[in-house]
This record gives sequence, structure tokens and C-alpha cells, in this order.
Amino acid sequence: MAGMLAWVAPACALIGLAFAAYLAVWVLKQDPGNEKMQKLSGLIQKGGHAFLMAEYKSLIIFAVIVAILLAVALPGGHGWQTALAFLTGGILSVVAGYIGMYVATRANTRTTQAATKGIAGALRVAYRSGMTMGLVVASLGLFGLALWAIFFLVNAQHPEPEIVDGFVMGASSIALFARVGGGIYTKAADVGADLVGKVEAGIPEDDPRNPGVIADNVGDNVGDVAGMGADLNESYAGALLAPMVLAVAMAFAGTPFSGTEFGVFSLDGLLAIVMPLLFAAGGIIACILGLFAVNTNDGSKIHKALDRGTYVTSAITLVFILLLCIGWQSVGHLNSVWFFGCTAAGLAAGLAIGKLTEYYTSYHKKPVKKIALASESGTATNIIEGLATGMLSTVAPAVVLVVAVALAYLCGMQVADGNAELAMQFGVYGIGLSALGMLSTTAVTVGVDAYGPVADNAGGIAEMAGLPPEIRERTDALDTVGNTTAAVAKGFAVSSAALTALALFVSFKTNLAAGAAAATDAAGGAGAAGAWSLNLSLDNPYVIVGVIIGAMMPFFFGAMTMGAVSRAANKMIIEIRRQFREIKGLLEGKEGVEPDTEACVTISTKAALREMLTPGILAVVIPVVLGILDVNILAGFLVGVLACGFLMSVYMANAGGAWDNAKKYIETGAHGGKGSEAHKAAVVGDTVGDPFKDTSGPSINILIKVVTVVSLVFVPLFIQLGGGVLHNFL
Amino acid sequence: MAGMLAWVAPACALIGLAFAAYLAVWVLKQDPGNEKMQKLSGLIQKGGHAFLMAEYKSLIIFAVIVAILLAVALPGGHGWQTALAFLTGGILSVVAGYIGMYVATRANTRTTQAATKGIAGALRVAYRSGMTMGLVVASLGLFGLALWAIFFLVNAQHPEPEIVDGFVMGASSIALFARVGGGIYTKAADVGADLVGKVEAGIPEDDPRNPGVIADNVGDNVGDVAGMGADLNESYAGALLAPMVLAVAMAFAGTPFSGTEFGVFSLDGLLAIVMPLLFAAGGIIACILGLFAVNTNDGSKIHKALDRGTYVTSAITLVFILLLCIGWQSVGHLNSVWFFGCTAAGLAAGLAIGKLTEYYTSYHKKPVKKIALASESGTATNIIEGLATGMLSTVAPAVVLVVAVALAYLCGMQVADGNAELAMQFGVYGIGLSALGMLSTTAVTVGVDAYGPVADNAGGIAEMAGLPPEIRERTDALDTVGNTTAAVAKGFAVSSAALTALALFVSFKTNLAAGAAAATDAAGGAGAAGAWSLNLSLDNPYVIVGVIIGAMMPFFFGAMTMGAVSRAANKMIIEIRRQFREIKGLLEGKEGVEPDTEACVTISTKAALREMLTPGILAVVIPVVLGILDVNILAGFLVGVLACGFLMSVYMANAGGAWDNAKKYIETGAHGGKGSEAHKAAVVGDTVGDPFKDTSGPSINILIKVVTVVSLVFVPLFIQLGGGVLHNFL
Repeated sequence: MAGMLAWVAPACALIGLAFAAYLAVWVLKQDPGNEKMQKLSGLIQKGGHAFLMAEYKSLIIFAVIVAILLAVALPGGHGWQTALAFLTGGILSVVAGYIGMYVATRANTRTTQAATKGIAGALRVAYRSGMTMGLVVASLGLFGLALWAIFFLVNAQHPEPEIVDGFVMGASSIALFARVGGGIYTKAADVGADLVGKVEAGIPEDDPRNPGVIADNVGDNVGDVAGMGADLNESYAGALLAPMVLAVAMAFAGTPFSGTEFGVFSLDGLLAIVMPLLFAAGGIIACILGLFAVNTNDGSKIHKALDRGTYVTSAITLVFILLLCIGWQSVGHLNSVWFFGCTAAGLAAGLAIGKLTEYYTSYHKKPVKKIALASESGTATNIIEGLATGMLSTVAPAVVLVVAVALAYLCGMQVADGNAELAMQFGVYGIGLSALGMLSTTAVTVGVDAYGPVADNAGGIAEMAGLPPEIRERTDALDTVGNTTAAVAKGFAVSSAALTALALFVSFKTNLAAGAAAATDAAGGAGAAGAWSLNLSLDNPYVIVGVIIGAMMPFFFGAMTMGAVSRAANKMIIEIRRQFREIKGLLEGKEGVEPDTEACVTISTKAALREMLTPGILAVVIPVVLGILDVNILAGFLVGVLACGFLMSVYMANAGGAWDNAKKYIETGAHGGKGSEAHKAAVVGDTVGDPFKDTSGPSINILIKVVTVVSLVFVPLFIQLGGGVLHNFL
Repeated sequence: MAGMLAWVAPACALIGLAFAAYLAVWVLKQDPGNEKMQKLSGLIQKGGHAFLMAEYKSLIIFAVIVAILLAVALPGGHGWQTALAFLTGGILSVVAGYIGMYVATRANTRTTQAATKGIAGALRVAYRSGMTMGLVVASLGLFGLALWAIFFLVNAQHPEPEIVDGFVMGASSIALFARVGGGIYTKAADVGADLVGKVEAGIPEDDPRNPGVIADNVGDNVGDVAGMGADLNESYAGALLAPMVLAVAMAFAGTPFSGTEFGVFSLDGLLAIVMPLLFAAGGIIACILGLFAVNTNDGSKIHKALDRGTYVTSAITLVFILLLCIGWQSVGHLNSVWFFGCTAAGLAAGLAIGKLTEYYTSYHKKPVKKIALASESGTATNIIEGLATGMLSTVAPAVVLVVAVALAYLCGMQVADGNAELAMQFGVYGIGLSALGMLSTTAVTVGVDAYGPVADNAGGIAEMAGLPPEIRERTDALDTVGNTTAAVAKGFAVSSAALTALALFVSFKTNLAAGAAAATDAAGGAGAAGAWSLNLSLDNPYVIVGVIIGAMMPFFFGAMTMGAVSRAANKMIIEIRRQFREIKGLLEGKEGVEPDTEACVTISTKAALREMLTPGILAVVIPVVLGILDVNILAGFLVGVLACGFLMSVYMANAGGAWDNAKKYIETGAHGGKGSEAHKAAVVGDTVGDPFKDTSGPSINILIKVVTVVSLVFVPLFIQLGGGVLHNFL
């Protein structure tokens, strides 16, 4: 009976999908505007489609190789099931990305057309297209994970968490490539088009003469729509998985979750697995309800309208979760209502970090104004101030994150009613719930974020199609807000990544410790041949070695992705310069002379596909290699990547966002306005910030999760190797 | 008898001091040049003296407050002795800094004068003045630490490591202020003088009309001479201390170091304490011998000559240490010769990281050439490429460092002859020895580094005194090499900081665990009231919380110090602009019109003193507060600071060095040479790199060590609090 409850989750996921379909049909029914607008939108659609198809082609090869390796290398007889889960996770992530992209690249011209009538309509089109993506991301994630969980966690006499881990690994690896590839694509086009167009040729942004503009617009979609969607899809699946895996481990360990009522579970144990699914299901319903709160006809209130959507959704979600926890407490034997505290701590931390990100990146606040002021003394001071702001902006989010972790831990502990050993386990389960709490409103976060590139594209189309300036003003109002919400979504993405990775790390450690204990029992006790144990204490030099290598990874990833953008942008610069030089009449704007936009799209596509491979493969291979060497090194490595990666990602995202808005602030007329020396300095800062905030920062985000989930999936292999081949030298 | 051996260390330290005195007298006897040169040098001396005196005045207040707190807050009856050790550590660090600065600010004009006759003489004066500083730093460190160790570790029936820890904390806190203050001073002056002089007014570097030039020259001395000296003095003392403290802990723990032959020590135990002192003593003698290898008359071979000095010294040091280890093995009962492997691993890692730093920052190599090439497409690409290079440059040093740690651990384990429990302890002692091995040649490293600012100043004086261009060419040849050696010294400083902090961290953990065990015994076993234990495992959420806060610290420190430079440089810019505007005839170079250099010196001095306080105090207070909360959080924090700080420091130092040399490379005529667009972009990169490499990077360096040694000193307090006030909520 209680197990049947789990089916509520896929059912709600289907409701989410149905609503997403309704939104998509609604968006596609809107007027796509005149022929020229449709043609421009068509070019963007074509570019986006071509890139995603090319990307998926490389990913198929990667996915098949990894699936075969999983099927072959994983001991325990579940290799092929894990491989299958891996493939479904990957496929659902791809489908979510493709649908979001499909709608977004068609919503752009419809938003422009709606803007000819007013802001309210334009906001509705843009936001609903974003929410299509948001709901698809969350619903597909929940649907896939819930089905695997129902078959291999909830109903089985012998739950097999490793198989379900495979699903998240699939979502994770696809997300990594989507984020890195998308990030390189968008910034190669953006940096290249800006440097030659705005700086060298002196033509405005989004000018139809610039051959790089279509690639830039495509990039917004593949980076911020498909990339961000895959990123949060992965966090969402990971956050769902972690508490379930922890609950299974606790059921095996003779806690109040153990029993015989439901396979190996007590009623509380079964509920501990089902509840995360129900929390997420409640979140999806709340997101649908919250949608109706986003509505305004006043350009200055768009931001408030979007915020209102987020707050309403969060409040409804919290009410659902509280009711579920009260229900749990009333049927079970634990003080389960404390778990509401864990979930609320995570959700509140997500909102708080979003607000902090806004403080550091909004041009209404002091930090960005200081960067704008520093631009007066030149480029160098603009850069120094931007870097310093980015670094400083890590402090408060780090404190919020650790406070949320500590609160979730303490709330979880209260469930144990004073038993110290149990308290730690419930506390850790509580940390898993806090990650889930933060991500329960994922659909809205993705929706608000995916709205940004649609608004941005809408403005580009208005400019290129030569629509009257008041239309562009309306789309600009939407776009400006989109920039802030994008920064907030990045803050949310990285903190959810850190919390999810932490929860997955604890699952990793729990599974590993269980394996070590089983091996030691089988060998006849500690000290016997074949017996081994974990030593994750900070005084084990191998752990420290792992932490240092882990802390190095974000720098390595940052260097690789920044270098990739720099190389690709350089190719773009050479091509755009060539076209301006060789295509006669292009720069003069002669009638009928058109740039070869396809050449630029090809450059971005090829560069992104080539450059995403090394970082992507390294992120999967390095943890496996370290784990084969020694699991203690690997554990240290995961914590190093988590801590340092979280901070690097916040640093890079916020520095980039702050530079961007410092430029925008000057463009409102401050410090001499457009064309002043301060503006020139700010443009340089913005260009440096582009790969910071849209390529490297987000890539590090995913790195944190990928290395952790890969390690989790390969636990059975590490156990078979007795804790790693170096283990015997310890 | 064996205990008497320890007296060799202070004796060798006195030999080092005597030789330093001989070098100083020799330098001061050289011809100081004409009246104008002497006047300029006099201004630099006066500025440097004024800054150090003002700095010491603030530090006295700080030191007295901390000493009183130590005497009062530390339980166990050794508070006042620890306070005394703290003060001597601080005073010796101050004395070393002052002597080095005294000689360096007098050697500058003498180097210029010697350059009128040829390169060989100029190199000799500059290098010998640097070596004066190097020998004073190492000898005073060894002298002070050896005496405290002889009284409270070697000869005592009850060794009191906490007291000796105080000495290192004294050196450490002074070093922090010297590094942060010196770094802010030098870069405020440098950035300000360059931006107004070179960029705005278009006058050359070191032009006598620029009122900021004297402050810039003073800054080279207070930053690179006094600051770097204090930094390595502290690493040196810390690296000496760590293996001794570990050996004492092992003697208390019933290992082969325990016995009754010498107080609580066996012969091997006593030797394990005395040997680090002898290794260091051998290093000082080797540095004196290696001095004679640095000699050349060919401007293109200066670098080779300096390298030769380092290699010869390293080789002699290794021979000494090998002989000592062989001697130890022959009189003791252990395979002590393996300890040579630990020491050699550290020394080799130091040399390797130095070479890697050179690769990433020398303009003869690919990375810097790529930055120079990227400058052609503008400032933004120069900055992106520089940041990417800095990030990438962390990978290889991190790998070298962890390999050295692992090798030292494995070599140390071999001493245990197969006993697993003992093997870990010997392995950890081996890691302590590897830090000492890396630092055994400190005198030469400091010498090579301190030579840089002397050569730089010599060039400035030649320019300002209007000497013929061939003199400036010779000093430039010295200076160019000095830039590379300074970068190498920075790589060395940060890797030695990481290794030292790691060794001190292990001592911290060992002392804490002993305290917990004693408390638990006294309480009547685990579980009893008053019993507590450490839980440093990575699955303790408090440990993770600590790691995240720790990883945040380098970002926080980076932000504070970059912000400080930015604010101070702004004041400097305003003042220099004012003088150019208000002092009639100054910019035109009218005879008899002189800038008010003192006003600029005052700005740098005041800014440095004000801005160094917050970071300095936070670095001391935060670990104490975290430890009072919970020692597990503190332990995680220390590892987080260590891992992330090491990487941030390498990243910032190398990015800065690479930008600097990319500019110099373009100035040799590449990519259009001086005055080209590429050069303008490279100048911006260099300016951004200034606070990176000379303020923030080095400050983070010290941060790593200060937080660790402060935690070590306060261990008795944390033990008294039962592992922290939160401990009971665990």
C-alpha cells in the first residue's frame, strides 16, 4: 500500500509534461511575425538544431562506450542494468534539452511580435516558453528516476541502488558535455562578434551586417537554454537520488528504517524512500500553480513579477512538504516532522544565495557601481575591481551554504531521539533532503533562466528586422531583467550542485564503507587477508593528497574552458574580419548584400564539439583512475573538487555578471556613458567576464557533480579491488 | 652526549650570522657612487626605514596583546613561556627583516656604481647583499628555534612542544603583517606611479619627475626583501618545528622513539629531534659554500650563475643529510637511512616547482609568448589568456607536491620494518622531514630573491641620476634575471608553505588526539562524561563545513588585499596627478624643480599600515573561534585553506609573472614592440598582475601557515574545552 504511493511521483511528472505540452502548443500558436523575422528565427532554429544534432552524434559514441564499460566493468551482476539506467538518464536529458531548445528558438520571434502590442504579452510568451523547458526538465527527471526507483528501490526485496545511480550518471555526463559545449559555443560567437563588430567596425550589437550575430543568438539558446537545463536536470536527479540511497543504506544497517514489513524496510524506511519522490512531485505541482503569479503590464515590474512566481512556488512547495512530513509522522514511529526543517533549510538557502548573487551582480547595488567607478581610471582598475568583487562575493554564499548544511544536519539528528549513532545517520539523511528542498522548485528556476535568452533573441530579431525602436525598448526591458535572473539562476545552480554533490558524496562513502565491512566479515575479521577498511580521516596523507588534486581540478577546468573560448573566438574574429574585407558592400549596408552567417555557425559548432571532449572525458576518467588507485585518495579528491569548485564557480559567475552589469550601468549614462573611456574599459571587463560566467563557471558546476556520481556508480568496482590497488601499501 | 649534538645547530647558525656580517661589511665598503646617487639611495633608505618603524610600532601593540592572551588563555601552566617564545619568534623575524632591508637599501647605489665597471662586480654586490638577508633569515630562525628546542624538547624530562610552537607563531604573525603590508605598499606605489607616469603623462619608468618613483623603489624593498624574508623565515621555522613535535608525540606513544635512555626518549627518539636541527645546520653551511659558485662576467650568463649557486648548494646539502642519516642508522636501531629519501623528495620538489614556475613565467617559453600573441587582439584576450595560463600553471606544481608528499610518506614507512601502525607514524614524520628538506636551502632562495629588488633599485638609480645608457643596460640585464628568479622564489615559497602547513597540521592533529585520549582516560573511558574523541573523517558534516569555509578564505584574502591595493593606488593616482598639475615646471623637467616624493611615501605607508590590520587579525582570530566551536570544523578548515590556498597562490603568482614578462617580451620588439596596440594591452595585463603576484598571492601563502600554527598553539585551550563547545551536539 505505502509502496503504491511512489506511483504518485511519475503521475505528477506526467501532469507536468502535459502542462508543458499545453504551454508549448500555446507558444507555437502565437503570431510569429513578418517574413523577415521568421527568416531570422529560422536561421537561429537551423543553427541550434544543427549544433544539437552534431553534439548528440558525438555523445552517442561516448554513451555507448561508457555503457559497455559499465556493463563489463561493474561486478555484482547488475552491470547491464546500470548501463541501461545510464542510457535512459542520458536520453531523457537529451530529450529535455531538445524540447526546450525547440520551443525557445521559436518563441523568440513570437515574443518580438507580441512586443509590438505591449510588454504583458511579450512577457507571457517568453516566460511560458521558459516554463515549458523548466517543466520538461523537472518532469522528465522525476519520471525517469521514479520509475527506476520504484523497480529497484521501493518494491525490491533486495534494493539495488547502484542501478539507479546509473540513471543520474547518464544525466550527469550529458549535462557536462551540454554545458561545456554550449558554453564554448556561445562565448566564442559572442566574444568574436563583439570584438570585431562593436569594437573594431563600430557597428551596434545585433547589427544584421555582422556575420557572427546569428551564431551569437544560437549560442544563447544552446548555452543558457539547453546547457542550463541539462545542468539543473542533473542536480535534480542527483538530489532526488541521494536521500533514497542513504535510506536504503540505513535500512541495511539495522536502524529504524530496517524491518520486514516491506521487503527489507520498516514502514518508516519505505516512507524514507518514497518521500523524496513525493516532495519532488509536490514541487512540480507548485511550479504549475506558481506560473499564474507571473503577470504584469508594467515594464518596471517584470522583475517583481518573476520574483513573485518564485516566492509563490516556494511557499506552496513548503506547504506540500510540511503536510507530507506531518503525514509521515502520524503513520510512522519517528519524529519525522523534523525532516521538514532539513528541506526548508535547503530551499531557504537557495533563495538566499539567489538574493546574494543579485546583490553582487545587479547595477542597483554598490559592488557593481564600484566597478563602474573604477572603470574611470582605466581597464586595469576595472579588471582588478571585478576580480576582487568576484572573490569577495564567495564569502556570504559559502556561509549560507554551510549554515544550511549544519541546520539540516541538526534537524535530521532530532529524529533520532537522543541516540548518538543514529543521530549522525539521520542527520546525513537530512542533508540529502536539504539538497532536494533546494531543488524542489527547479522547474521555476529553469523557467526564469530560460526566459532570458528568449528575451535576448527577441531583441536581436527586432534589431535585425529593423522594427521601430519602441519594440526594441520593450524587449530590452525584458532582457535587462533576464540578465539578473540568469545571474541568480547561476548562483542557484552552483549552490544546488554543491549540496547535491555533498549528499551524493555521503552516499558514496556509505556504500563504500558497507562494502569494506562485508569484505572484512567475509575474510574473517579485521587484519585477515582480504579485509580492508576506509580511512577517510584528514590525518591520512592519501586523503590530503586527494583533496589537493581535487582542489586543483576547478583551476584545470577553468584553464581548459577559458583557453577553448579564446581559441574559438580567435577563429571567429579572423572569419568575421575576412567577410568584412572580402564581401563588397557588406559593411556599407548595401541592399541585398548579406553576410555568410553559416560560416560563423560552423566555426562555433566545430570548436564546441572539439573542445568539449577533453574536459568531458577527463571528468569521467580521473575519478575512476583515482578510485582504482585508492578509495581514500578518491574521497579526498571529491571533497576537494566540491569545496574549491563551489567557490571558483561562484567567483567566476559573479565576477562575470558584475562586469556585464557595470558596462550596462555605464550605458545608462553614468561615468560618461556610451563611448566614454570608462565605457571602453567596461567593455573589456565584460568581454573577460563572458567566458567566466557562461563557460568556465558553469562547467565547474557540473564537474563537481559528475566526479561524485561517477565515483558513486563505480563503488562496486572499487569494493571488488579491495579499496584500490594502492590500498595494500597503506 | 647525543643531546649535546643539538648545540651544533646554534653554533652553525652563529657561523651563518658571522658570514652574513662579513658580507654586509663587504657590501657597505663598496663605493656608493656620486652625490646624486647617494641622495637617491638615501631617500629610499629613509622611506624604507620610516615604513618599517611605523609597521613595528603597530606590531608591538598587536604582539603584546597576543602575548598577554597566550599567557592568560593557555591552560597547563606554560602560557607565559609560550608567550615569551612567541615574542622572541616575532623579534627575531623583525630583526632579520630590518637587517636585510638595511643592507639592500644601501647595496642599490653600490650596485649601480659597480655596474659602471662591468657586470661581474655589479652581480657580486647585488647577490652578496641578497645573501646577507638570506643567511640572516635562516640563521636567526635556526638559532632561536634551536635554543627553545634544546631547553624544552631535547633536554627536558617532560618535553613541552607547545612552548616551542609559540616561537613559530611569533615568526608567523610578524610575517603575515610584513607580507600583507609590504605587498600593499609596493603595489599601491607601483600601480599608481605607472598609471599616471607611464600611461597618462607618457614619461618613462623610474623617471625622476615622477613623484611616485621613490615610493615604488622603497616598495620593492619592503615587499620583496623584508616581506619575502619574513615569509621564508616563517616557513623555515615551521618546517624545523614540525618533525620535532611529531617525534616528541611518537616518544609519548610507545614507539621505538620512546625510552628511558634520555628522559622520555630512546636514542632514536632523541636523534629524531636533534636531526632536523642538524639538517638545517648543514643547509646553512652548504649555502655559504654555494655562494662561491655564483660568479660571471657575461651578462647572458647571470641566470646560469644563479642557478649554479642553487644546484651546488642543494647538492652539498643532500650530501650532508645523507651522511647524517647514515650516521643515525649506524648508532640507532632503525633503518633511518630511508629518512634521507623523505628529505630528498622535498628538496627535489622545491627545485622542480621552481623550474615549472620558470616555464610558465619566462618569456623564452610558450605560455608567455601566447599571452603576448593574444595581446594583438586586444586587452580582453590578453587578460583571458593570462588568467587561463595562471590556472593551468597550478596543475603540474600540484602533482609534484602530492608526489613528493606520497614519496616522503612511503620512504618514512620503510623505517617501520613492516609494522602497519608504526608505518603510518614514521610516514608522517617523513612528510615533516620533506618540508625541512625543501627549506634546508632557504638562505640561497632568499638570497636569489632579495637580489632582484637590489638590481631593480640599481637600475632606477641609474635612470634617475642620469647615468649613461650602457650602465642602465647592465643593471637591466641583472634586473631581467631578477624578475624570473623572483617568480621562481614565489613558486618555492608557496610550495614550502603548503608542505610546512601540512607537517604542522599533522602535529596539530597528533597533539589534539593525545589530548582527547588523555581526557577520555581521565573520565574513565569512552562514553563517560568528559570523554571525547576526534572525528576527522570526511563523512563528518562538520569536517566538510570546515573544508568549505577554509577553501573560502583564500578568496576572501584575495579580495581584501586586491581591494586594498586598488584603494591605495587610487589615492596615489590622485596625489601624483595633483603634483603634475600644481608643481610648476615639474613635468617639463625644469632645473631645480623637484617632486614631493615624501607625500607619496606617506600615502603608501599609511595605506599599508591601515589595510594590513583586518586580514592580519582575521587570520589569527578565525581559527581560534572555529576551534572553540569545534575542533573538527577547525581541522577541516585548515585542510581547506591549505589545498585551496596553495592553488590560488600559485595561480595568482604565475598569472602575474606571466603578464609581466609578456609585456617585457613585447618590449623586446615582438608584436610591434613598445608603443604598439599589443604593448598597450600588455601593460594593462601587467598592471592587473601586479597585485596578483606581489600582494594577494604571497599573502595567501602566509595565511596557509598562520592559521595552522595558531591552531597548533591553541591546542591546549581546545583540549580544555573538550574539543570545542559544539562538541556535545555532535
